[in-house]
Amino acid sequence: MRYAILGTGIVGRTVAERLLSLGHDVVIGTRDPATTLSRTEPAATGAPAAPYAEWQARHPEVELLPFADAARTGEVLVNATGGRVSVDALNAADAGHLDGKVLIDIANPLDFSQGWPPVLDPANTDSLGELIQRTFPQLRVVKTLNTMTAAVMVDPTRVAGDHNVFLSGDDEDAKKTVRELLYSFGWPEASVLDLGGIQTARGPEMLLPIWLQLMGKLGHVDFNFHIQGAQPKA
Amino acid sequence: MRYAILGTGIVGRTVAERLLSLGHDVVIGTRDPATTLSRTEPAATGAPAAPYAEWQARHPEVELLPFADAARTGEVLVNATGGRVSVDALNAADAGHLDGKVLIDIANPLDFSQGWPPVLDPANTDSLGELIQRTFPQLRVVKTLNTMTAAVMVDPTRVAGDHNVFLSGDDEDAKKTVRELLYSFGWPEASVLDLGGIQTARGPEMLLPIWLQLMGKLGHVDFNFHIQGAQPKA
Repeated sequence: MRYAILGTGIVGRTVAERLLSLGHDVVIGTRDPATTLSRTEPAATGAPAAPYAEWQARHPEVELLPFADAARTGEVLVNATGGRVSVDALNAADAGHLDGKVLIDIANPLDFSQGWPPVLDPANTDSLGELIQRTFPQLRVVKTLNTMTAAVMVDPTRVAGDHNVFLSGDDEDAKKTVRELLYSFGWPEASVLDLGGIQTARGPEMLLPIWLQLMGKLGHVDFNFHIQGAQPKA
Repeated sequence: MRYAILGTGIVGRTVAERLLSLGHDVVIGTRDPATTLSRTEPAATGAPAAPYAEWQARHPEVELLPFADAARTGEVLVNATGGRVSVDALNAADAGHLDGKVLIDIANPLDFSQGWPPVLDPANTDSLGELIQRTFPQLRVVKTLNTMTAAVMVDPTRVAGDHNVFLSGDDEDAKKTVRELLYSFGWPEASVLDLGGIQTARGPEMLLPIWLQLMGKLGHVDFNFHIQGAQPKA
């Protein structure tokens, strides 16, 4: 499969490496490749990351393209942009024709502008997943993987014991495609909790505040949510 | 210990029964006892419950008092009112002198007025726990137990396997008091996750949307959140 990952941060790079290891083709989309490659500073928010150019040098097989070219190339799209700029990024990508494509939405709409803790916007009566689906009805949006650190997304064995990944989306075929991808990442079938339509993306997005609190409390990020009692009772 | 439970719904009754079984004295507070006792219909929101009077008849040792008298009587207070009316209830209770008392805040500010799903108000940039602490600085507020069904609050063995209860509060002594109570309910020490000050109440309150989704999805309420990986690594 040919994946187009929108976003050049830690999440995009981590997913890209995993997809490559599974034999997929990967392109990465950004607003302006020349600008992305010229950056020497880590991003202002989120986990500190080495400059993208260093990562790119280690992965010459991955093409860095403007959003529209990446979207045109990818059969499945992954939204790994910052949640507050995702709609802008997808507007740019739309020139590459999004029609009918599956978009795996991993982003969280965290607003860091007022300091710590960041707040979710939208939240509660809306979610980024819904906003994207509403704004781009031609996409088949599946919200997933946004409730854990990037390394755990692509290798759930980093966290010992059972834990869950959530799925929200209106298109059953798209959810099936994403399920298969999750299985290939190592997620056991029973760990995938399908919450329902895209409106349910509110729930997992609203896990971010406690996730950030736990990160601070535990001092590491190798943890994840497990819904104990979700398995059918014996 | 003498507990005053504010609120006559399922949560208040369930906690009252458990406290009684542990040998504590319990009074229950309501706006107007005569009105509460005269109700024959289940509450309009939340889990359906038999009329309070039926429960009262089975528990003659529990006095039903106006909020202020209940607050005066209780050494420790439990907020089991609907989250959207908690401040009103506490304003009424304040006439009974809240000074220095521990308030265990179990409520969630779910607004059902716009239909399903209910939305949290306040949320994201504030929480009910914070609002109560801010409005009643004379109380020592500890947010806990709000992330699960009432039966699990008082008997964690209803959910097989490890799972967590969260604590948020500014007063360390108050949190210690609440910890001891949780242990007496059967919560193992390792299951209690202290998130920090009362501001962290935002995180667990924002678990409610996914909790409600899971209730719908699973068709039962005997489940709970477990933070896998929260234990120190070997």
